[in-house]
Amino acid sequence: METELADKKNLLIIGAGGVAQVVAHKAAQWAAEFGALHIASRTQSKADAIVASLRDKGHQVAVETHALDAMDSKAVADLIRKLDAKIVINVGSAFINMTVLEGCIAAGAAYIDTAIHEDPAKVCETPPWYGNYEWKRREAVEKAGITAVLGAGFDPGVVNAYARLAEDEYFDKIDSIDIVDINAGSHGRYFATNFDPEINFREFTGTVYAWQGGKWTENKMFEVGREWDLPVVGKQTAYLSGHDEVHSLSARYKDSDVRFWMGFGPHYINVFTVLQSLGLLSEQPVKTAEGQEVVPLKLVKAVLPDPASLAKDYTGKTCIGDLVKGSLNGKPGEVFIYNVADHKQAYDEVGSQGISYTAGVPPLAAAVLIARGPWDVKKMANVEDLPARPFLEMLGEMGLPTRVIDATGDHPV
Amino acid sequence: METELADKKNLLIIGAGGVAQVVAHKAAQWAAEFGALHIASRTQSKADAIVASLRDKGHQVAVETHALDAMDSKAVADLIRKLDAKIVINVGSAFINMTVLEGCIAAGAAYIDTAIHEDPAKVCETPPWYGNYEWKRREAVEKAGITAVLGAGFDPGVVNAYARLAEDEYFDKIDSIDIVDINAGSHGRYFATNFDPEINFREFTGTVYAWQGGKWTENKMFEVGREWDLPVVGKQTAYLSGHDEVHSLSARYKDSDVRFWMGFGPHYINVFTVLQSLGLLSEQPVKTAEGQEVVPLKLVKAVLPDPASLAKDYTGKTCIGDLVKGSLNGKPGEVFIYNVADHKQAYDEVGSQGISYTAGVPPLAAAVLIARGPWDVKKMANVEDLPARPFLEMLGEMGLPTRVIDATGDHPV
Repeated sequence: METELADKKNLLIIGAGGVAQVVAHKAAQWAAEFGALHIASRTQSKADAIVASLRDKGHQVAVETHALDAMDSKAVADLIRKLDAKIVINVGSAFINMTVLEGCIAAGAAYIDTAIHEDPAKVCETPPWYGNYEWKRREAVEKAGITAVLGAGFDPGVVNAYARLAEDEYFDKIDSIDIVDINAGSHGRYFATNFDPEINFREFTGTVYAWQGGKWTENKMFEVGREWDLPVVGKQTAYLSGHDEVHSLSARYKDSDVRFWMGFGPHYINVFTVLQSLGLLSEQPVKTAEGQEVVPLKLVKAVLPDPASLAKDYTGKTCIGDLVKGSLNGKPGEVFIYNVADHKQAYDEVGSQGISYTAGVPPLAAAVLIARGPWDVKKMANVEDLPARPFLEMLGEMGLPTRVIDATGDHPV
Repeated sequence: METELADKKNLLIIGAGGVAQVVAHKAAQWAAEFGALHIASRTQSKADAIVASLRDKGHQVAVETHALDAMDSKAVADLIRKLDAKIVINVGSAFINMTVLEGCIAAGAAYIDTAIHEDPAKVCETPPWYGNYEWKRREAVEKAGITAVLGAGFDPGVVNAYARLAEDEYFDKIDSIDIVDINAGSHGRYFATNFDPEINFREFTGTVYAWQGGKWTENKMFEVGREWDLPVVGKQTAYLSGHDEVHSLSARYKDSDVRFWMGFGPHYINVFTVLQSLGLLSEQPVKTAEGQEVVPLKLVKAVLPDPASLAKDYTGKTCIGDLVKGSLNGKPGEVFIYNVADHKQAYDEVGSQGISYTAGVPPLAAAVLIARGPWDVKKMANVEDLPARPFLEMLGEMGLPTRVIDATGDHPV
């Protein structure tokens, strides 16, 4: 028994927000796959609160918490070594990705994240975004012999696997991949973002990059809208938006159009437009009449509801999927591969809303696949570079089942 | 000649914003009425900029500028004594009224302001607002033997004189006084306030008090709207709003309904509603994730256009007037007493937009009436307590002519 436990890989979760909470609950449910469980956060009490929420749901598994400045790669490496962690799931702020990755490279642990690295001082850098930070570490990752899975949340993440499934099982030529993300849920507040407003708004304030006709195209947010008619959530308007996965899928599917569509209601667009037009979403400081320097976006974040506080009242469902068009042996076709998640069901299970749930389950599924072997590829990979079937099967077992609409109808994958 | 000059009262303007600029230009045009002219401001360079704008318009009159902390009543009194100022026009921030008034009481100068005193930490205090600060100084003013004219801008100010004109010349019983303020001008910006956003928004974030049926009634902003069809500006929707003049007119006309209506377009209401709903118009500090304390309203002010910067592109007209209903010898009737002002004409004359123009001309007219005698009443008075005809005649000479719509048609007063 002791040998068996020793064989299992210790898991370190970095971050203690809404997504980290989901990862921790799933890790507790799947504790048999891992050795020791650890949560590290800048503010240790937030990690302790997650452990308390585990106890609330009846999980008795041992979990240690740690205070960590994840912007300090040496501190990350030291903690990994001290804990003998073999897999690190980074679900902290998007600003810490590169320092956590450096720590994993130095200490020899597998690395998983769910969103692209961001520089606090810059918005929407040159495409492909992965080329700005992540892919520059490819050689270092390979040399260290570690596995680094990038963007393993839902979108990016699961939607990348959906594209790979279409490649593997449907088409020999892919013409277009349209990823559609609809949150048809309701939180009952005047206005709120579903995750950190600072990151949320940064997604929409810059140029909207899409990969079309073999090159990067540029639009403004809310410039291009399209009505979709999707399972469960019905008719919804979604807008061409900038998103991480376009920046990796465009490399693997360089002859296909790759677009991301995010659903927004008129109220969200109105509030966003007012704030942006007034300059209140800027990350550049302004000076008040009293001489105080303030970053407008940080104030907006401070007045908006804490995304975690929305969970208990959240109702309704999300539908996120890939419409892939292509051909097989010259015969054209299309397939819509998707998941529907339920906000209340997520809250009942792990104490988080559906957006956090869909983002937090996949990195734990990825961790299990690294622990078991099929995804322990000893190099840097985006999700579409890895086998899709084992990932989608694991997600199905973990509560995020995949469905497919193809020529034969609407059915489980 | 020297004796004549010595007889004339030295004038001190406190403040150096858009309204102060209008007061200064009018004072320069009417310099023969006064002794020496002075402008004092916390930031002396802003007062110097006003003097430069006088020179641009060809005014050669001597004007001295001074740095003054008007929140310090002793500093105000010292400056008044040093300059031998006999009339002080206070067109600085609404937060300095009481310290400037104390300075005038101490140093024996006449006092004129254009807006109610406000405490930076409070919004919309118990009605009548004048009872909270100004009227508590009545005895002190009378004892000092000085004249203090409160609220002598356009609204409050000229509209109070319109009510008094209706009392003097139209009715022996007044049923209702509805003051309507329509700015049908366009500044060409996405959004801007016409004067200091901090003061502007504070007008609309609190309870809307009106005096109806012999008591204070309470509504929310934009709760009660009414369509008006007015001279020059045409059909316009105006909303029941809280405003200074209701809080003095309700004392003199306690058996009449007194309401104030402000015109707003749907775009203004939308932006205001978004900002207010998110808590961005609050004067209470919030703490950012980084621990910085920020007053949201002060940041909003910092991102909005400087009201003074709007002037050069401002086009269109304002219409502000009183619809007074009542009866004379039992015979019911109504009269609409009003002024129409033009933004571009104001800019060409004094370098300010129409809102500043209508607010800045009346206090200078009041100063002339104090200098000449008819308004030098040696007590505290709101404008409706003073003879209306000389004021309206002076305003006509100064560029703000009054017109009347009564049973005989639409004609000059």
